[in-house]
Amino acid sequence: MPTQTLPLTISMHPSDNVAIVANDGGLPVGTVLSSGLVLKDKVPQGHKVALVDLAADAPVLRYGIPIGYALKDIPAGSWVHERLLHMPDARELDNLPIATVKSAVQAPLEGYTFEGYRNADGSVGTRNILAITQTVQCVAGVTDFAVQRIKAELLPKFPNVDDVVALEHTYGCGVAIDAPGAEIPIRTLRNISLNPNFGGEVMLVSLGCEKLQPERLFPPNTIEIKTASDTRGTGSAGPLGVPPLQGGETRSGTGGLVCLQDDAHVGFMSMVESIMRQATTHLQRLNARRRETVPASELVVGVQCGGSDAFSGVTANPAVGYCTDLLVRAGASVMFSETTEVRDGIDQLTSRASTPEVAEAMIREMAWYDAYLQRGKVDRSANTTPGNKKGGLSNIVEKAMGSIVKSGSSAITGVLAPGEKLKQKGLTYTATPASDFICGTLQLAAGMNLHVFTTGRGTPYGLAECPVIKVATRSDLARRWHDLMDINAGTIADGSKTIEDVGWEMFHLMLEVASGRKKTWAEHWKLHNALVLFNPAPVT
Amino acid sequence: MPTQTLPLTISMHPSDNVAIVANDGGLPVGTVLSSGLVLKDKVPQGHKVALVDLAADAPVLRYGIPIGYALKDIPAGSWVHERLLHMPDARELDNLPIATVKSAVQAPLEGYTFEGYRNADGSVGTRNILAITQTVQCVAGVTDFAVQRIKAELLPKFPNVDDVVALEHTYGCGVAIDAPGAEIPIRTLRNISLNPNFGGEVMLVSLGCEKLQPERLFPPNTIEIKTASDTRGTGSAGPLGVPPLQGGETRSGTGGLVCLQDDAHVGFMSMVESIMRQATTHLQRLNARRRETVPASELVVGVQCGGSDAFSGVTANPAVGYCTDLLVRAGASVMFSETTEVRDGIDQLTSRASTPEVAEAMIREMAWYDAYLQRGKVDRSANTTPGNKKGGLSNIVEKAMGSIVKSGSSAITGVLAPGEKLKQKGLTYTATPASDFICGTLQLAAGMNLHVFTTGRGTPYGLAECPVIKVATRSDLARRWHDLMDINAGTIADGSKTIEDVGWEMFHLMLEVASGRKKTWAEHWKLHNALVLFNPAPVT
Repeated sequence: MPTQTLPLTISMHPSDNVAIVANDGGLPVGTVLSSGLVLKDKVPQGHKVALVDLAADAPVLRYGIPIGYALKDIPAGSWVHERLLHMPDARELDNLPIATVKSAVQAPLEGYTFEGYRNADGSVGTRNILAITQTVQCVAGVTDFAVQRIKAELLPKFPNVDDVVALEHTYGCGVAIDAPGAEIPIRTLRNISLNPNFGGEVMLVSLGCEKLQPERLFPPNTIEIKTASDTRGTGSAGPLGVPPLQGGETRSGTGGLVCLQDDAHVGFMSMVESIMRQATTHLQRLNARRRETVPASELVVGVQCGGSDAFSGVTANPAVGYCTDLLVRAGASVMFSETTEVRDGIDQLTSRASTPEVAEAMIREMAWYDAYLQRGKVDRSANTTPGNKKGGLSNIVEKAMGSIVKSGSSAITGVLAPGEKLKQKGLTYTATPASDFICGTLQLAAGMNLHVFTTGRGTPYGLAECPVIKVATRSDLARRWHDLMDINAGTIADGSKTIEDVGWEMFHLMLEVASGRKKTWAEHWKLHNALVLFNPAPVT
Repeated sequence: MPTQTLPLTISMHPSDNVAIVANDGGLPVGTVLSSGLVLKDKVPQGHKVALVDLAADAPVLRYGIPIGYALKDIPAGSWVHERLLHMPDARELDNLPIATVKSAVQAPLEGYTFEGYRNADGSVGTRNILAITQTVQCVAGVTDFAVQRIKAELLPKFPNVDDVVALEHTYGCGVAIDAPGAEIPIRTLRNISLNPNFGGEVMLVSLGCEKLQPERLFPPNTIEIKTASDTRGTGSAGPLGVPPLQGGETRSGTGGLVCLQDDAHVGFMSMVESIMRQATTHLQRLNARRRETVPASELVVGVQCGGSDAFSGVTANPAVGYCTDLLVRAGASVMFSETTEVRDGIDQLTSRASTPEVAEAMIREMAWYDAYLQRGKVDRSANTTPGNKKGGLSNIVEKAMGSIVKSGSSAITGVLAPGEKLKQKGLTYTATPASDFICGTLQLAAGMNLHVFTTGRGTPYGLAECPVIKVATRSDLARRWHDLMDINAGTIADGSKTIEDVGWEMFHLMLEVASGRKKTWAEHWKLHNALVLFNPAPVT
């Protein structure tokens, strides 16, 4: 590891007129940089120093673009913090460059495989989990009680099943379920239930009187419908349908569905036993799943960042971007997201779209989110956090430039609206809020079987539904959080590794984790964050 | 118990031109009612029968008010279901009767007491719980891990403490925290932390970089601020402040606050140990609390209904209303809520307001919610559920009439906006959405120490933070859910008990439960629903 005593600054683009300080603890006033420039201020780690004299109103360039305009004259060597910058307006959504960049066709990456669970629908799971879908929060207490008993009494009998997870959420009733936007949480919950890690088994617990009725969550055209008698003990791993209403009045408590208000339930324990009985059916089928060798193209990777700092866009996110390109070359699916964190780089994205239709779909998602924020009387600048700013990110423009690099350099070939299910390989813009938990939830709904999460400030993020590989942007964080961070991309700033090195390290670790040969730290400690459904409609 | 073979219908007001069928299983076509009227249709239980010929456009009267207008001629004896009704527009919010009804002053109810935990601020808890407040969802996984260890290793050493509860929520970051309305989730979380059942102990777990910083959640003027050294092992039960930032840069990991990103944390277990150490400090003080005899006026009761049917407004809710009047006579605090479920009866409420200011405050809350729903392109009619309709409630007007009766007949002397803390005795309209979990969360924030929840369709609702007494509207539900329902108000429809009987039964049970002498069924099974913060602002 190279010594950190030499002053170290990092520029991202030849035209940049600021650079960030890489040294742990920052650099004191009077420090002489390698260029001969003398610091006029103490500059904290990750924060920007002016490389030249910046006149009032001059653009402050990072990543080769204006991340802001100087509010007053800023002499070379000064600390350029957010209070010295005026933020540019958001890029307008008309007259954007459309599919102008033809990404260099990169050689396919062949021969990489992992050991996964092949599902009947062709998708591949990286874990073997019984998920219990809930139509409504009302059933959460009873389901939790049952899940504890399932884990204690049933799971040991099904050693090939990794876990039992209740898909708890706060939607389902007390919401304006016919309002514009209500389709988002509904399809999200539906598609999460169909995540490849759950083996095509859909087990539903419903209350009975809720707004989100089982047949609304799973209309007949969404999954194969079988009657209760078809679903018992067949041993098949095929999709399990929700039995239709019987006689139009009462719903069967067997099959894929347990309805707590079912007349057959007398006493609390009868509800618990119904859930356990139904779980047994699914556990039997899940237990028959076996890992098999599948090509790396079966990975469905969601990339995300949270608790970002100025290093996110310098170390971890570029390494993710490199890995994204490797995955695309291997024929895999990669999703990048976080609408407010790509909004300011929309021109980069539309120009990288493979077709005008893809570019138009991205613009449509941005416009939808602009309008959503405007209804709440805010804009994309509501994104940045105190920690972002403390970490050196002055505003959402600078944050976005560092966030977008997770998408690498491949052509963008697909776009999903929030909660939609991914149906293609390659690089897809999966529109989500930037909220870590909503983004993760929507990527799960899209079909994610592996999650990559970069962090600069540090977060113990984890999901019960899918492995999460966490990447530290700084070596200091990786050292202190040694048993929470799976990869240290801070080595890039230290100079001990290249972006390519860390990108390949990530790619190889993905195959190990996907195969179940390695657990992530979040899996080791069982750190499970909540599913958070994105509901842009009102509650009632 | 009277026989159910006689046809039984219930009217609520002398002017009603419909009545509901009380018999289990409904009544078949051809049934002759005691009035001589012959049913022209099969009418399900809880559903309405026309008592006279209703001409097209005629008002359909229940609770003495038009719950709708006939879409066509409806002959006497017909089933009056929601497809035959046109719903009235919402009552306009101007020209309402203001404080016109002078409630008869009822004799004070004296001599009733319970055994509660008196707090330093004068409030009284009904349980003795260590609550761990979280600034942000990011810390939920680590906090859960720590709570499991606290329950296993620490709680047995503090036998006077009932439970340890992580106040998990999905707010705190990835939200537009400066948007209009964002003050609601923030003050809600703050005030929940100060619920009387938590003994004035505020233990915070923070990530560090989140938008909802500890000092934003607890500004200096909200709770007493003590430095870390003041908060250690004093044995006092006084409010515990969050230590101020030290030196402006790093935050102390001691005192009331554990910050996961604190530099002192090296490795996951150091975070867990910080939480456990901090918990020990609070547990020591909580363990010193003792129950003492306090007057019934120290009850702070939140009333709510969920999974309602046509019996809700006939049996359980009137009994709650009677009990509300008893509580008010005893000097206690009672909160009723659920804005969309009182909106259609706003004239009843403004007329019962004790002062014009109280009436104006109610109107302000209704107008705010009207505008909130309108932004989402819906109105209060988005409230009703499939289960409501199946249970006989045709629309929100009918549902509201049955919901409002929970408020009894006392003067309404206070109004709270969502998330505000109650500061007075008597009957208060606590504005909340009708969503069971959001309503319960907001009533907890207001300071509720006992919760009453009525249900017709049946729900296993429960909260970790406060006992919930559940009241069944029908005997059939009470029989089948015998170990989930705490009170059967269906006896009122059966004719075996009066509204007054059940109201008094509820009042006495409240004192038993508040004293810890009885556990509710939700407590027995540990049925805990999620806290759901009401965030009308966008996520980012």
